[in-house]
Amino acid sequence: MTSDPTALAPMANAIRALAMDAVQAAESGHPGMPMGMADVATVLWSRFLKFDPAAPKWPDRDRFVLSAGHGSMLLYALLHLSGYQQPTMDDIRHFRQLNSPCAGHPENFLLPGVECTTGPLGQGFAMAVGMAMAERHLNAQFGDDLVDHRTWVVAGDGCLMEGINHEAVGLAGTLGLGRMIVLWDNNKITIDGDTSLSTSEDVLARYRASGWHTEDCDGHDFADIERAIAAAMADDRPSLISCRTVIGKGAPNKQGGHNVHGSPLGKDEIAAAREYLGWTAAPFEIPEDIMANWRATGDAGRDLRSEWEARLAANPQGPELMRRMAGELPSGEEAGRIFGEWLGKTQNIASRKASELALEVLTPLVPEMVGGSADLTGSNNTKTKATTPFGPADYAGRYVYYGIREFGMSAAMNGMALHGGIIPYGGTFLVFADYCRNAIRMSALQHARVIYVLTHDSIGLGEDGPTHQPIETVMSLRMIPNLQVFRPADAVETAECWNLALASPQTPSVLALTRQNLPQLRHDGAMLSAKGAYRLVSANAARKVVLLATGSEVAIAVDVAKALEEQGIGADVVSMPSWELFEAQDAAYKADVIPADVLKVSIEAGTTFGWQKHVGDGLTIGIDSFGASAPAPVLYDHFGLTAAKIVPQILERLG
Amino acid sequence: MTSDPTALAPMANAIRALAMDAVQAAESGHPGMPMGMADVATVLWSRFLKFDPAAPKWPDRDRFVLSAGHGSMLLYALLHLSGYQQPTMDDIRHFRQLNSPCAGHPENFLLPGVECTTGPLGQGFAMAVGMAMAERHLNAQFGDDLVDHRTWVVAGDGCLMEGINHEAVGLAGTLGLGRMIVLWDNNKITIDGDTSLSTSEDVLARYRASGWHTEDCDGHDFADIERAIAAAMADDRPSLISCRTVIGKGAPNKQGGHNVHGSPLGKDEIAAAREYLGWTAAPFEIPEDIMANWRATGDAGRDLRSEWEARLAANPQGPELMRRMAGELPSGEEAGRIFGEWLGKTQNIASRKASELALEVLTPLVPEMVGGSADLTGSNNTKTKATTPFGPADYAGRYVYYGIREFGMSAAMNGMALHGGIIPYGGTFLVFADYCRNAIRMSALQHARVIYVLTHDSIGLGEDGPTHQPIETVMSLRMIPNLQVFRPADAVETAECWNLALASPQTPSVLALTRQNLPQLRHDGAMLSAKGAYRLVSANAARKVVLLATGSEVAIAVDVAKALEEQGIGADVVSMPSWELFEAQDAAYKADVIPADVLKVSIEAGTTFGWQKHVGDGLTIGIDSFGASAPAPVLYDHFGLTAAKIVPQILERLG
Repeated sequence: MTSDPTALAPMANAIRALAMDAVQAAESGHPGMPMGMADVATVLWSRFLKFDPAAPKWPDRDRFVLSAGHGSMLLYALLHLSGYQQPTMDDIRHFRQLNSPCAGHPENFLLPGVECTTGPLGQGFAMAVGMAMAERHLNAQFGDDLVDHRTWVVAGDGCLMEGINHEAVGLAGTLGLGRMIVLWDNNKITIDGDTSLSTSEDVLARYRASGWHTEDCDGHDFADIERAIAAAMADDRPSLISCRTVIGKGAPNKQGGHNVHGSPLGKDEIAAAREYLGWTAAPFEIPEDIMANWRATGDAGRDLRSEWEARLAANPQGPELMRRMAGELPSGEEAGRIFGEWLGKTQNIASRKASELALEVLTPLVPEMVGGSADLTGSNNTKTKATTPFGPADYAGRYVYYGIREFGMSAAMNGMALHGGIIPYGGTFLVFADYCRNAIRMSALQHARVIYVLTHDSIGLGEDGPTHQPIETVMSLRMIPNLQVFRPADAVETAECWNLALASPQTPSVLALTRQNLPQLRHDGAMLSAKGAYRLVSANAARKVVLLATGSEVAIAVDVAKALEEQGIGADVVSMPSWELFEAQDAAYKADVIPADVLKVSIEAGTTFGWQKHVGDGLTIGIDSFGASAPAPVLYDHFGLTAAKIVPQILERLG
Repeated sequence: MTSDPTALAPMANAIRALAMDAVQAAESGHPGMPMGMADVATVLWSRFLKFDPAAPKWPDRDRFVLSAGHGSMLLYALLHLSGYQQPTMDDIRHFRQLNSPCAGHPENFLLPGVECTTGPLGQGFAMAVGMAMAERHLNAQFGDDLVDHRTWVVAGDGCLMEGINHEAVGLAGTLGLGRMIVLWDNNKITIDGDTSLSTSEDVLARYRASGWHTEDCDGHDFADIERAIAAAMADDRPSLISCRTVIGKGAPNKQGGHNVHGSPLGKDEIAAAREYLGWTAAPFEIPEDIMANWRATGDAGRDLRSEWEARLAANPQGPELMRRMAGELPSGEEAGRIFGEWLGKTQNIASRKASELALEVLTPLVPEMVGGSADLTGSNNTKTKATTPFGPADYAGRYVYYGIREFGMSAAMNGMALHGGIIPYGGTFLVFADYCRNAIRMSALQHARVIYVLTHDSIGLGEDGPTHQPIETVMSLRMIPNLQVFRPADAVETAECWNLALASPQTPSVLALTRQNLPQLRHDGAMLSAKGAYRLVSANAARKVVLLATGSEVAIAVDVAKALEEQGIGADVVSMPSWELFEAQDAAYKADVIPADVLKVSIEAGTTFGWQKHVGDGLTIGIDSFGASAPAPVLYDHFGLTAAKIVPQILERLG
């Protein structure tokens, strides 16, 4: 760590040079933010940030989140300059090229020093809230010796203007996350032009209204930046520091304008910038003295990590912390055996209730589970005895009252999962997956084990009507890559799906659960849901029909099968709690469960769109319009989802 | 309009009685909000709101938005009591039953007095911003004589806590929408319990930070409510009035607690409430004197409407205002003919550019079009010469700089469309449809003609990487009922799709447009996109293959067809800009375009999920993983979307 302030300017210029040269080489990218925030980032990384380039996954490192992810070259430059193994200078030369870890936006799965993927605006900030929650939680559970770090965010105007920012700010303020510090790149420029085109907000006043501490500094005055950061660290509220910056600082003819935001400076302007900055090194070369100063920024962190490692070795809780951070379950199989007992019972309950019962078993066994709901605790059935409220009064608590903040909740859960040491789950109504859809996508993209408890999963919720009734929601989630969508048919399947979700460290899961009661259909078979789909009922008469159904409609399919059998028509019932897991089975299994030579009929209280994949030119029974407001049984009849209305259609098809 | 303040309490109690009795009869619903806000609503409707029960669609009426839509009985009671033809008392008795217009949440398509559908929290408020924008815009264009009304909102804590509220508040503050007044039901209760569980925000300070005027009143003191509303009306900024209320006011043993929010009071508590309120009438009966006072609330509005009708008849701009309010296009067919000229040109341009050129033609012809973008104007190509900036400096302007507020923009567009007189269109990147997905769903549910210009519609955007590359987005939009999703293949199709979108008064549209240039493929044929799918290229050799493609992949399909023909294999190319319009064609047309006896191959740079509907067990060429960061041509090759990589797969299938 250099203590010479005159060294900082050349260090910052090294960031600027890399940013402008990499963007130019790629012929695309965003030089404005890295050049504008170079001074702030240099102060943070050289004076305050706790990190060890040799150990990017050190559990007690500070988390640094570049929420304004389009400025990815800032992060790549910082990681390279400070001595991380990756990215190499060659990686930076290949910025935005296939197979370079220096992607257009930072991707956590490509580069170890990237804490989270920050393409979609506002979510980095909101994920940082989750990271800061995770830190306080693990600190409360494991003590200052093992967990004692900060979460830093660099955010732009876009991050602050997005709706999710309001949710994240409110959550952080209420939870008193004083170890979260946001550096706002206050450059008064957005893509469309001056910020006054679209906002007149007093940002600092808004943050103060939500219980934040605020600071203001000249983002190009090293001493002032240092003062502001120190003041933020000294305050026990979350802090927002307005860093007044010039976008593209260092590009003499373009800085301060919106055209420097998202396209290469061009060769002439780069030459002018080199002269303006006094930067004489060739592209992608960093003078030795400047590099030496950068490499020294990791020194303090290296020492701190050694001390931490010693404390970890001496601490009896050390292995437990490391187990959680590694994402290994304590006793998943044991939990699975416990659910096996449910086969012998008869629980005719809503799957949201079955989920609650499963959680009552799981949450004491899996202490890293942290639950919550976006103000629907009693409806989502997400709270258990083991999960007491999380907040300033008790950060060891394991239940978060997220408020009416679906998107903020989901992003915070991503942050907790990515921080490590926590398996977050949270609830809302399934239809409001729309409100947090991009965060669900980000769980999947980032390989974050987040479990979404989405109840009231069809017209079966009844009277609340079409705005609350998912029609296309389940199907639209099934098409997100690396997302497991579970729609269990009864209590047993619900328990199985909870196990499968927990046992998927690289994959988020959605549990689509009913409001209404369901008959228990399964009384034998171990973990059949793991196959994604399985034969629940085998045809008695010669098989002519295979009924495919999920969730609450499996019971209807069973009724349909009975009615067909009474007419001498053999019908299998296949329960299909997870399309993704079924897709992963081998061809023989799939062909056995869904054979070629029979009429296939899908029954699901949602869009029929997509079922053709499994039923071919068979029958698709579902709902392709919006729902309606009425009691659930009335709606099931109205939309034709009863055995009495389905059987004649099948008979007609069979001719 | 009664001028006797002692009359107000019984009037408010009439609302309470209807709310508790209707919820009880339905055995579901939300009595807490209607009972808590009954006093405020009574003051507003009897003293301030401009409405005429005989003319629910009167263009110059005040708009009243019940953003906290779960309190729907408040609105149904107000409409019935004040003398609207609907709902009848019988409708109210059938609250939450199938075919009653008194649905669980207010639905604009069921009941004329419902300005918008307000189930999903936060969106009513944000739609009201759009209504207030529409009012100012039409006022600037048609003058005070014809357009001069206010937009009122009743909002709860949920509306204010949702992220979209931040976007709506920021937009309204920046745009200076002084004729918007929000009555906040500040009851300190959410579903999970006391608001302090999840928020510590100083709400009024936050609003002031965004340029709003704020007031505070005792929500059960008629004089204080009246004072606060009058003060809000006198201020030229948008106003938030904190109405301190007791949730479920009037239910003596339950009021003030969260259990009164969302379930029936029960017979005993209803009896206690009747006694507490001194309400002796039978359920669903309103004493004559109270009803007379309620019916008088519409008197002033009736007179105002008569005067307005006279001014309308005398105003030369009257017919034009009424045309716009009726949603009739001025010259859509003429615009269509103009696009016909494009057939003779060769425009090898991005479809986002083609969209801009189409808009340059359309926006002067269709003056009710109001455009905008969520801070991506130069990328979405949404601004035209005819659309100058909209804002306090010029409300006659037709281009909105929405800022980085996708959800807020979309809801505001819904509000504008529902206000009437405007056809809104707005842009963002296609992948960020996720950020506003529920507002798109609400466009569809509400039959609102909103046009979403969603550019950068595939991996073809290149280097920005997987967070910016839609994979599942187009397909997931196709499954929303009553939404037209267009993915045009070239400039001509883009123009056609714009025409089709404009010509659909009851249906919103999404235009999925490319960043990258596309060759012009169409040089003849009139409005073929109206069929949804059509044969662009007919097989030369004996037809063995039909290639189905959309957007940028149609050109690839053409290349594939050429390569197949060179091997003597006949192949049709079908361009399929709209699945929804194709679905609406007759069976013969569909069978002609997608015949049974050939190999069907879909080619689309997105998920293959769903294509089975059209290709059966044919080939689906697409992308079922997330994208990557690299130049577009590299990505197309990497993901196998080139003729060179597709042709061998087809040959293998043909055997």
